[in-house]
Amino acid sequence: MTKNRSQRNKRNRQMEADRSKDRRASRRGTDDLVHLFGIHAVAAAACNPQRPLIKLMATQNAEAKLRQEIKNMGGDPSKLDGITQNTTPKDIDQHAKDAVHQGLYLTAGQLESADISDLADANLIVILDQVTDPHNVGAIIRSSTALGAQALIMTGRHSPEESGIMAKTASGGLDMITMVTVPNLARALDDIADLGFHCIGFDSEESIPFESILQKTAPEQKLALVYGSEGKGLRRLTREKCAELARLDMPGPIKSLNVSNAVAMSLYGCHLRRQSVIN
Amino acid sequence: MTKNRSQRNKRNRQMEADRSKDRRASRRGTDDLVHLFGIHAVAAAACNPQRPLIKLMATQNAEAKLRQEIKNMGGDPSKLDGITQNTTPKDIDQHAKDAVHQGLYLTAGQLESADISDLADANLIVILDQVTDPHNVGAIIRSSTALGAQALIMTGRHSPEESGIMAKTASGGLDMITMVTVPNLARALDDIADLGFHCIGFDSEESIPFESILQKTAPEQKLALVYGSEGKGLRRLTREKCAELARLDMPGPIKSLNVSNAVAMSLYGCHLRRQSVIN
Repeated sequence: MTKNRSQRNKRNRQMEADRSKDRRASRRGTDDLVHLFGIHAVAAAACNPQRPLIKLMATQNAEAKLRQEIKNMGGDPSKLDGITQNTTPKDIDQHAKDAVHQGLYLTAGQLESADISDLADANLIVILDQVTDPHNVGAIIRSSTALGAQALIMTGRHSPEESGIMAKTASGGLDMITMVTVPNLARALDDIADLGFHCIGFDSEESIPFESILQKTAPEQKLALVYGSEGKGLRRLTREKCAELARLDMPGPIKSLNVSNAVAMSLYGCHLRRQSVIN
Repeated sequence: MTKNRSQRNKRNRQMEADRSKDRRASRRGTDDLVHLFGIHAVAAAACNPQRPLIKLMATQNAEAKLRQEIKNMGGDPSKLDGITQNTTPKDIDQHAKDAVHQGLYLTAGQLESADISDLADANLIVILDQVTDPHNVGAIIRSSTALGAQALIMTGRHSPEESGIMAKTASGGLDMITMVTVPNLARALDDIADLGFHCIGFDSEESIPFESILQKTAPEQKLALVYGSEGKGLRRLTREKCAELARLDMPGPIKSLNVSNAVAMSLYGCHLRRQSVIN
């Protein structure tokens, strides 16, 4: 890509991002609220300066534990003052339905999506091509955060909305990792490549094992790992935009994995390469 | 342990296993039935000679796909003759409730537990200390099967019963891996060690990273990986019976993983060691 074209593309995308922010702002209402529950999800939300906190229902015990956890995470428990209403576990049950709420039920604003341009300093990101199950996405957010990925990119359509289930499964990760929603994944992959990321798409039918790519990749290389949904895999354009396609090598009789397990394994591979455990 | 003591222990355990088999056989009734759904789970069950097949409800389309899948797996589709009843998706919906059944609903006998002594030729096994969630256990069975582990050991109590959800999440793995249920995990760990396995217990609070254990372990070493539940972790006796304790190294701000992701990552580590990608 010539520099001029790249700059023009960048400008166009910035304008589109601005328009999309305006649209989001004008839409903002009760639809943009999310209910978070469980100690990790609620504590991480309270420690995230980007997260609007609206109302917390909590048992007295759970509130005390939450304040301590916020302190442990380096946050400010006084953010709970004035928004907390002490109540009974039974009362919270009625709001949280079947969820394991641990005595905590927070009404909060949804997070705004970051822009691709915010990822210039990242060096490891995860990209999901239409993975729709919120449990899977939550588990992916958790292991991505644990394994040091700085961002998760999803498509605006065919991805789950931010939700309590996703946040609970993410165990706090939703408020720790940078979440980016894009209208057009193929274009996002171009932008990611422009930022210096090497994009690797996963497909269990590919012949090249991921570890052989890791072995030839410099430990400091910026990496973007791209995964499709279990049924459909990567879409054609997504595949074309990846610099390389790889499979996770499975020695056993089942050749494909649950997507959250595939993400955890491949991020672990990246970590081992960065630690030079893989050479 | 002296050879005599070892032989005496072995004899005692064999007698106990025989008694326990008799107890299981005398109990056998409708409680021992399980309902399996989804193409992978049902095809794997049909290919498993140990699995009693009782009745299959299937749409015509799904039955045709199933017969082809059984053939692809080297099994015999004629096992479906006489037990198959063609019906509508709606009818199956009523039996399978919310499950994604893919037009297949099999009533089958539960599998008998294998004995520890059956694992003499195995070289990689997974042991769960009271992991209770059937989705987690199903995902663990799937990735264990994919990554070449030959057996999964669970405790008789505080483990999920074999179920359709577990089998569906395991994507066929439940009928491909050797499942062992033990009354006493501490004793089972002794038996496993007697078979030459090096038992490694996982705990996110431990100081030794798993990969450093892998680096000093011979690629051909028999390994048994032991995991606790997310809340409680490994029990005291379980910890004491492990030859080593390790943590999976997490560079990010979340330090613990969903147990099925932890299993997938560590089995991938074992695979990389066996392939000498980790040296």
